[in-house]
Amino acid sequence: MSGLAAVSNKSEQLKMTDCQGDGAGDMTPMDLYEKLTSQGETVRTLKTEKAAKADIDAAVQLLLKLKVDYKQVTGQDYKTGCPPSESAISQDNGPAAAADGDDMVDPWNVSTSSAKGVDYDKLIVRFGSSKIDQELVDRIESVSGQKAHRFLRRGIFFSHRDMHQVLDAYEKNKSFYLYTGRGPSSEAMHVGHLIPFIFTKWLQDTFDIPLVIQLTDDEKYLWKDLSLEDCHRYAVENAKDIIACGFNVNKTFIFSDLDYMGASPDFYRNVVKIQKHVTFNQVKGIFGFGDSDCIGKIAFPAIQAAPSFSNSFPQIFKGRKDVQCLIPCAIDQDPYFRMTRDVAPRIGYPKPALLHSTFFPALQGAQTKMSASDANSSIFLTDTPKQIKNKVNKHAFSGGKDTVEEHRKYGGNPDVDVSFMYLTFFLEDDEQLEKIRQDYASGALLTGELKKSLIETLQPIITAHQERRKQVTEETVKQFMTPRPLDFNF
Amino acid sequence: MSGLAAVSNKSEQLKMTDCQGDGAGDMTPMDLYEKLTSQGETVRTLKTEKAAKADIDAAVQLLLKLKVDYKQVTGQDYKTGCPPSESAISQDNGPAAAADGDDMVDPWNVSTSSAKGVDYDKLIVRFGSSKIDQELVDRIESVSGQKAHRFLRRGIFFSHRDMHQVLDAYEKNKSFYLYTGRGPSSEAMHVGHLIPFIFTKWLQDTFDIPLVIQLTDDEKYLWKDLSLEDCHRYAVENAKDIIACGFNVNKTFIFSDLDYMGASPDFYRNVVKIQKHVTFNQVKGIFGFGDSDCIGKIAFPAIQAAPSFSNSFPQIFKGRKDVQCLIPCAIDQDPYFRMTRDVAPRIGYPKPALLHSTFFPALQGAQTKMSASDANSSIFLTDTPKQIKNKVNKHAFSGGKDTVEEHRKYGGNPDVDVSFMYLTFFLEDDEQLEKIRQDYASGALLTGELKKSLIETLQPIITAHQERRKQVTEETVKQFMTPRPLDFNF
Repeated sequence: MSGLAAVSNKSEQLKMTDCQGDGAGDMTPMDLYEKLTSQGETVRTLKTEKAAKADIDAAVQLLLKLKVDYKQVTGQDYKTGCPPSESAISQDNGPAAAADGDDMVDPWNVSTSSAKGVDYDKLIVRFGSSKIDQELVDRIESVSGQKAHRFLRRGIFFSHRDMHQVLDAYEKNKSFYLYTGRGPSSEAMHVGHLIPFIFTKWLQDTFDIPLVIQLTDDEKYLWKDLSLEDCHRYAVENAKDIIACGFNVNKTFIFSDLDYMGASPDFYRNVVKIQKHVTFNQVKGIFGFGDSDCIGKIAFPAIQAAPSFSNSFPQIFKGRKDVQCLIPCAIDQDPYFRMTRDVAPRIGYPKPALLHSTFFPALQGAQTKMSASDANSSIFLTDTPKQIKNKVNKHAFSGGKDTVEEHRKYGGNPDVDVSFMYLTFFLEDDEQLEKIRQDYASGALLTGELKKSLIETLQPIITAHQERRKQVTEETVKQFMTPRPLDFNF
Repeated sequence: MSGLAAVSNKSEQLKMTDCQGDGAGDMTPMDLYEKLTSQGETVRTLKTEKAAKADIDAAVQLLLKLKVDYKQVTGQDYKTGCPPSESAISQDNGPAAAADGDDMVDPWNVSTSSAKGVDYDKLIVRFGSSKIDQELVDRIESVSGQKAHRFLRRGIFFSHRDMHQVLDAYEKNKSFYLYTGRGPSSEAMHVGHLIPFIFTKWLQDTFDIPLVIQLTDDEKYLWKDLSLEDCHRYAVENAKDIIACGFNVNKTFIFSDLDYMGASPDFYRNVVKIQKHVTFNQVKGIFGFGDSDCIGKIAFPAIQAAPSFSNSFPQIFKGRKDVQCLIPCAIDQDPYFRMTRDVAPRIGYPKPALLHSTFFPALQGAQTKMSASDANSSIFLTDTPKQIKNKVNKHAFSGGKDTVEEHRKYGGNPDVDVSFMYLTFFLEDDEQLEKIRQDYASGALLTGELKKSLIETLQPIITAHQERRKQVTEETVKQFMTPRPLDFNF
């Protein structure tokens, strides 16, 4: 996706604007921690060796400066032997929602002023995650014996935490499970909502592992002006679209929080354990909650954290608490899992690993995430072929020039063209995609022709989805949503 | 109990020290609200009638003063048409825990510097509840056709909310249910812990109604340094002592939060509903929570609130949400239910009614609540007759004089004598109790003799309890703790 290409242009800027406060450069909290620890040793050595006062003073000066930087970057005081916590990493900018340049990213708000979309390389630095580089993509291919999914090949899943550890263990026959989710705020789902599910299905098929899918109907009730009944109904309706992605019923458990919390004492036990180990100060720092927020919102992060631990599902993992979890999700959900990873070792559980995706752009441009409440902001899973054609032609933001003449002469800009971005998500053929990119940039391909390619790519995908969804009966939904053992051999 | 007698001596003090800030006198928030509303009308009338400027100014001055008083008392701005909320009532003194004179009362701390115990009349004013007066006691007798329990006759249950409404409805054949609970922080229970259960059993028998008993093992996990497993085990052990009080298995459901939350989607739905309608600011005001408290504590009040609503128990009330709840509990639990009563109308449920008890004093004196972790602070349900005798003789704070001579001459003080206080709780015969009081005060009865009376009263009660507890099998516990229909005809 062009958002990622755009990012590399911005990496110089990153160093100049210094996202971590004066003086700290763009060092990570861990870099700073290590530098501080070694500087502390330097000072001690100088003192022990009774070095010249000027030398000691200079070393102490640097130590103090580093301590100030550390406090700025992490929001915490430096303590010998206590490396910075993961959720401290974004607290230098206040809550995760704080603007970095012009980008805002948290679970409830994503916005950027750039037509190319959010600056994802900056997000990696700010969130303290790792980039999915070519080496990791190659390794996933070699470990799984499968060609990497186009989302990996094209940097749509662009960031991770601990994916190498997951693969190390997998190579030693230590398997893992997948966890992803959705907040059901309406019946309508658009193609963007499918991204994590398309990728998760590929992971499930490729690694042959169990999957749990959380539908946070309780969250939607707490955040939106909706009734509990509506949120729960949306959860069940959304489950049908999720099932239509082709998940294996013998390896997949889909649950509504409103149902599962009241059906599993083990799940609630983990929620309470997490809630005991997270303070209001922490969720304030991570999520930006305030004193006038309801206590349900304040406590909710523990509910999204709990499925990261395998003993939340005793029916699947037979009480084991040590099965590694891998969470594919959009990067805006990372704050929840930074918190989860901080808590995990303190309650005796392994940290979940993560694979982060970029955002799927709105038809109107990559500046915002799509909205399920604006029918023209995206292609919905219920759209007819004709609606798809009209929406793309009418609303998809174009990177083309104003006249055919200018376009032929100067070429279009695929980096801001939403039709091209969508093709990056949905056109499987790498060569064809690259040819479209080149032809559009050169001016050989006109905007109308580019849009036609997208329309012809999307129409059969959506029609096929609708066919599969029709096959999903209430009985099928019930099967997926019943707590039960899954095929699982570890 | 003498604590209550002591209170009447203090009521003059109450008016002088002015518990509600300068200027507001001891008006309740509702008095002030009504005065403000009527003063607003006065000002409007004067203006409409074009009265003399001096008159209008004077009226406006008074209006402004009342607004300042109102803000001081309730912590809220006066708004026409919005009467003060119940939980605002104690916020004038900061959280419920705030000291009033020398008394501190909240769900986690109870202390007073008076040997006579907490000043309960002051608490009634501060909490905005109503006194259980002779008229109410008489009415309970006439409606139920039973002699009032000694706890009512002696002011041990001394305060209420909406008890007249409950009786009005009951007279019209509209029944109600009982809800009480216990926080299981250890296996050991002392006689003080039995007070709400002894009284609740009497209410159940007298009104022939269902009862739910919440064991807040999740709360104890959140507040104490205990494992989930221990808290749950204590819940089950405590259930045995509660069952031994003689509850009717066909009308009583006892539940551990850790179990029932994970066994009832309807219970969790009510918890989330409550959590959506209470802000951090509110729990900060009511319970004194701070930013460094864990999010589990912050969200917990909703879990103690939820059993106040009948549809949290669909197996008992068949989905009905309108069955009136009556909560007998110690007064320190009132903050939870002030919050509950504020939320109830906003989520379409009836407010629970309450009956509040005084605290059972420690052997060492009425200044503090007893501690289950100090074996000598009370009589435990596992104590042998010999242990009871030794503890009373050795540790029960005496209101007697230093020498027999002085005692005969000046008499003892039953108001601060713990043995006499305990007799008030456990000796059924009113005349005998009054005779002991008079003889002790006159000096005719010596401390040793008073203690002997208590020992002889307690020993058979505890022995009988132990006999009944032995009969409580694991099977019986399971019966009481299984969600199931109860005998219930409304």
